[in-house]
Amino acid sequence: MRPNERAFNQPRPIKITRHYTKHAEGSVLVEFGETKVICTATVEDTVPRFLKGLGQGWVTAEYGMLPRSTHSRMQREAAKGKQGGRTMEIQRLIARSLRAMVDLQALGERSITLDCDVIQADGGTRTASISGACVALIDAINGLVANGSLKTNPIKGLVAAISVGIVNGEAVCDLEYVEDSAAETDMNVVMLEDGRMIEVQGTAEGEPFSHEELLTLLDLAKQGCEQIFAAQRQALAE
Amino acid sequence: MRPNERAFNQPRPIKITRHYTKHAEGSVLVEFGETKVICTATVEDTVPRFLKGLGQGWVTAEYGMLPRSTHSRMQREAAKGKQGGRTMEIQRLIARSLRAMVDLQALGERSITLDCDVIQADGGTRTASISGACVALIDAINGLVANGSLKTNPIKGLVAAISVGIVNGEAVCDLEYVEDSAAETDMNVVMLEDGRMIEVQGTAEGEPFSHEELLTLLDLAKQGCEQIFAAQRQALAE
Amino acid sequence: MRPNERAFNQPRPIKITRHYTKHAEGSVLVEFGETKVICTATVEDTVPRFLKGLGQGWVTAEYGMLPRSTHSRMQREAAKGKQGGRTMEIQRLIARSLRAMVDLQALGERSITLDCDVIQADGGTRTASISGACVALIDAINGLVANGSLKTNPIKGLVAAISVGIVNGEAVCDLEYVEDSAAETDMNVVMLEDGRMIEVQGTAEGEPFSHEELLTLLDLAKQGCEQIFAAQRQALAE
Amino acid sequence: MRPNERAFNQPRPIKITRHYTKHAEGSVLVEFGETKVICTATVEDTVPRFLKGLGQGWVTAEYGMLPRSTHSRMQREAAKGKQGGRTMEIQRLIARSLRAMVDLQALGERSITLDCDVIQADGGTRTASISGACVALIDAINGLVANGSLKTNPIKGLVAAISVGIVNGEAVCDLEYVEDSAAETDMNVVMLEDGRMIEVQGTAEGEPFSHEELLTLLDLAKQGCEQIFAAQRQALAE
Amino acid sequence: MRPNERAFNQPRPIKITRHYTKHAEGSVLVEFGETKVICTATVEDTVPRFLKGLGQGWVTAEYGMLPRSTHSRMQREAAKGKQGGRTMEIQRLIARSLRAMVDLQALGERSITLDCDVIQADGGTRTASISGACVALIDAINGLVANGSLKTNPIKGLVAAISVGIVNGEAVCDLEYVEDSAAETDMNVVMLEDGRMIEVQGTAEGEPFSHEELLTLLDLAKQGCEQIFAAQRQALAE
Amino acid sequence: MRPNERAFNQPRPIKITRHYTKHAEGSVLVEFGETKVICTATVEDTVPRFLKGLGQGWVTAEYGMLPRSTHSRMQREAAKGKQGGRTMEIQRLIARSLRAMVDLQALGERSITLDCDVIQADGGTRTASISGACVALIDAINGLVANGSLKTNPIKGLVAAISVGIVNGEAVCDLEYVEDSAAETDMNVVMLEDGRMIEVQGTAEGEPFSHEELLTLLDLAKQGCEQIFAAQRQALAE
Repeated sequence: MRPNERAFNQPRPIKITRHYTKHAEGSVLVEFGETKVICTATVEDTVPRFLKGLGQGWVTAEYGMLPRSTHSRMQREAAKGKQGGRTMEIQRLIARSLRAMVDLQALGERSITLDCDVIQADGGTRTASISGACVALIDAINGLVANGSLKTNPIKGLVAAISVGIVNGEAVCDLEYVEDSAAETDMNVVMLEDGRMIEVQGTAEGEPFSHEELLTLLDLAKQGCEQIFAAQRQALAE
Repeated sequence: MRPNERAFNQPRPIKITRHYTKHAEGSVLVEFGETKVICTATVEDTVPRFLKGLGQGWVTAEYGMLPRSTHSRMQREAAKGKQGGRTMEIQRLIARSLRAMVDLQALGERSITLDCDVIQADGGTRTASISGACVALIDAINGLVANGSLKTNPIKGLVAAISVGIVNGEAVCDLEYVEDSAAETDMNVVMLEDGRMIEVQGTAEGEPFSHEELLTLLDLAKQGCEQIFAAQRQALAE
Repeated sequence: MRPNERAFNQPRPIKITRHYTKHAEGSVLVEFGETKVICTATVEDTVPRFLKGLGQGWVTAEYGMLPRSTHSRMQREAAKGKQGGRTMEIQRLIARSLRAMVDLQALGERSITLDCDVIQADGGTRTASISGACVALIDAINGLVANGSLKTNPIKGLVAAISVGIVNGEAVCDLEYVEDSAAETDMNVVMLEDGRMIEVQGTAEGEPFSHEELLTLLDLAKQGCEQIFAAQRQALAE
Repeated sequence: MRPNERAFNQPRPIKITRHYTKHAEGSVLVEFGETKVICTATVEDTVPRFLKGLGQGWVTAEYGMLPRSTHSRMQREAAKGKQGGRTMEIQRLIARSLRAMVDLQALGERSITLDCDVIQADGGTRTASISGACVALIDAINGLVANGSLKTNPIKGLVAAISVGIVNGEAVCDLEYVEDSAAETDMNVVMLEDGRMIEVQGTAEGEPFSHEELLTLLDLAKQGCEQIFAAQRQALAE
Repeated sequence: MRPNERAFNQPRPIKITRHYTKHAEGSVLVEFGETKVICTATVEDTVPRFLKGLGQGWVTAEYGMLPRSTHSRMQREAAKGKQGGRTMEIQRLIARSLRAMVDLQALGERSITLDCDVIQADGGTRTASISGACVALIDAINGLVANGSLKTNPIKGLVAAISVGIVNGEAVCDLEYVEDSAAETDMNVVMLEDGRMIEVQGTAEGEPFSHEELLTLLDLAKQGCEQIFAAQRQALAE
Repeated sequence: MRPNERAFNQPRPIKITRHYTKHAEGSVLVEFGETKVICTATVEDTVPRFLKGLGQGWVTAEYGMLPRSTHSRMQREAAKGKQGGRTMEIQRLIARSLRAMVDLQALGERSITLDCDVIQADGGTRTASISGACVALIDAINGLVANGSLKTNPIKGLVAAISVGIVNGEAVCDLEYVEDSAAETDMNVVMLEDGRMIEVQGTAEGEPFSHEELLTLLDLAKQGCEQIFAAQRQALAE
């Protein structure tokens, strides 16, 4: 039996609160059960050096965890003086995922930075970050359209991300912390609304996984993403 | 006229939400108007090396701002690879202030770390941090008493902090961002309930301040702290 | 037509030279076409702190590129003062992959570090690294068995890694640099000899990929890994 | 009884030696008893980026201690790879204090950096630094006037700084190390010649301080600063 | 008796393999016995800031060791986050030595970076680096002449480097690791073909050395360099 | 003609002031003309890890320059966050030189750190540092003998260091800054009283140097060191 009596294909309750803080062009609190992440989108009128003069835009991301977002306190990365490998891996994943939903040519020479800061962690912080940042990014871009900075909207569609895995021999969707710690295989899938994939990252933590297990997990991920898309659409409609 | 039509001696609305996140031994969201800080208290059964074997405890603090807690995005200190001078100054101030309310001998050989992370900044982040961390610290210590780790409660009383300053020639209490930017003098005061002071840090940003102005500011600070103590007591009573 | 007239499912020539340098317990030069990586395995009689006293071993990895292993010179990470996100991501992947082929309990309280240093890069450096490090690791462990340090051999089997991707709309195996730069989707697969997977990391660089495309890529990866296993077995037999 | 039989309101002997080293535009050795600091002023024809094109100047400061300026050797900050919080706090204080004595508009687009390096520490290094840097700054600016770079002298007056505190229940002026270590309250005051204040930083190290104690300390600080002003005027007259 | 029955004035077998890797403008594997270093030369059309607009070129160098080039594994400098003092000392020596063989005016406003990466260490890595980098530099510059970027060849001649030392009371040439560890005096000499010297760095590790011993060592160094020049000429002739 | 009408073999006036600061076990201000360095010796009852339990001592050194010890201000290394290559090279040289004058076995398990901090630079800072640190080290060790910590004095003799070089075709001794900048060859020699050498570091900055020039320079160095030994002996006799 899963914690909170969830079915194997049932994500945790998803809650997306827009306009969570006031300074950012897009600001969202996303909750996947007890996992809570603040996602902000910042628009700046510059692009990284490698894009200067090319007439296209850029989308990037940074990720952090409050020191006590976790069960025991983690050392603050600013105090350690560097970001760890896990942080870098996650923020690169978030950035690639979000870039896939934007027509960078149509964005023009401007950058949007997504900051995803975990205030409470209970598994799935990277998938919650991507799913929440998607909404913050749309709010920021809609703002550019509304104030006339953009003539056409460069958003190509929604992006959702979910973790799936094999726990105690059973394939389940949207692992929370106690499941994640015990998972034999853990896989994160980032999807577009049409079911095509942007990222698939599967890792055998314990036992290697077979081709069949991979197919089962992909199917679960597709079901989970449908529910995230629904939550995103509902939040954007409010 | 002050923003929001506040009187010169009127702090912004103060709101203290306990148990804001679930992992920390103490966790508070403190709001001074639009300034919002998450303060968590973490208890650990070790002390810094310089205290090992002395039988006493320690209280320390770290401070951070989410990159987009501010009007324009600040670079993430973890990405820069070091904490700036302002961050260090503030976290040292928070730590000294909070240590003043605890009998470190009675705490025994354990440390409590206060993490103050600003999620939205509108002036007074350090004073809100101290005032909120006070409540998180009490919750953490009450937990130690409740579970029998501590026989006697080492809390000596509440600590509150407020900023006061001279803006357009007038002394005012609890400056918000637009006032802070225009202040000639800016002073942070940390107080105990009996009116005695733990810290006074006054800085002439523009015009130097006279002895009389200093006295006026201290009086305003005292009035402001009374209201913070009231908010702390009310939160702790809930 | 692919460069060098390769068929879509044909990896580049794979060459594994054992005992490439003299100090390391295992030392391999692995070549996937023009990609050349030195993989060494170092045995040490300690384990990381989190494993102390648990009676089990550890396998870890570090990755680097010589500054002029690439078309234009990259800045040396030691001179920059930190390892980039790509480096961290790759060395974490190598370590996870290699750990999957060792019974860490049977290894006892010792660590093996795999250093993978690219001396010439032409695409697929991480997959070449994993495939070469596998052989270096076996040599190091066989040495421990030969000198009596280990009673039973903790090796569970071979591990191979290959990149597959969609280039100009066609699925191909073992991308070299010019293909990698043009790929719409790029996927790295790490496999055991029985066909089960340790890692699947697929990224849509351009166009998202469909479920069918994913299946095609996995099939190509399986074929590619068979050839790597053959090369590993042949090298180990010499 | 105080060390060296000083009266409660008596600073240590103050000695200011101008032209102490030969390269800097201003160079002073300042001694407050056994505390000795080299203060140099460097003029450069640039301003920090945030002031570019605004037609005004800037005054900044850096602070350091020789490793064996203290009783036991401190680790060299250059070797540690970062400046500690105390160093940052002090150099920010020095910079703010010195800026208060200069009309930055009249200085024009140039920067003056005050380097304060402690060669022997015995309490009060920050107040000695400010008091000595004041003289080095005047020498540097007088040089600019003398060589015609400046038409009008942007110096607004002298700045002096002193520490005061409560030691064994008694308020005393200009604490040396043994007093500083035992102080219940420690306060640094930075003053202009007209008695107005630029900085007041009071910290209860042990017992909190009352309003009356604060007033007593401010009065002592005023007396102490008078003597520093006298020493500065005398040095400048030589 | 020396290891491998070498005579006191006999360097180890010297082997220089050109075009060792394919991307660099010059790429050499140099072997002094069991010491093996990859030396690449990279040409870039920029100069350091202090040379901008002066119409002259620059030659610089970087040095590194693969972690397991040595008997026991060294920590990777990129992972430590800084280059050690020995690395800096060596790369400064390599750069000075190579600059001496180039007419920097005739090179024009371009830089050449020599990367010397030790893949196997057995004493004398810095002298092998200089001797190999000399050939890589010539290949890079000859390329500039061949493609018309340079009208006249700025190479002034060959540069060779050798270590000499006093081991067990006897002066010997080209110390390998076991000799180096036991040497009383260790000296590195960098020479031009006409016998004039660019660098002499002699260090008494154990017993100080006399004027006569210094003369003996210089004579040995001259003999050793002759053999390196011969190997360089032969490699360049192929 | 040399600056200050010095003869080619005449060092600048050498001045050694003992007990310059009060906390260190040895503290010297050394002046070679306008070059001024504070050298302190700190005794600590520990040894580096690689010497633990071997019953011998250690001597090490650190070197720094005050930012405005030079003609134009250098960036503070503590602010840059790392020590440059030149600093590292110099402090390694100082340490090796000073170790040569101490019987490390007789010193017992304790360390002495020599801090050499340049307060005014005019060429020859490293040779002044070594020559001054020699006296500080003797004072520190004599202190250990005097207080009974050491039964026998581990000092083997004095160490002196001088720079020599070829300037405008002429060999000269103890180069000051304007000479050093123009030198074709620059050589630092560290000597014992019996004329044997600990270090010889000769660098051709411009023209390579011949065997005969090297001999001339060594002879000049010997003459210069005699004068330094005289100054050291005189200072120690006071």
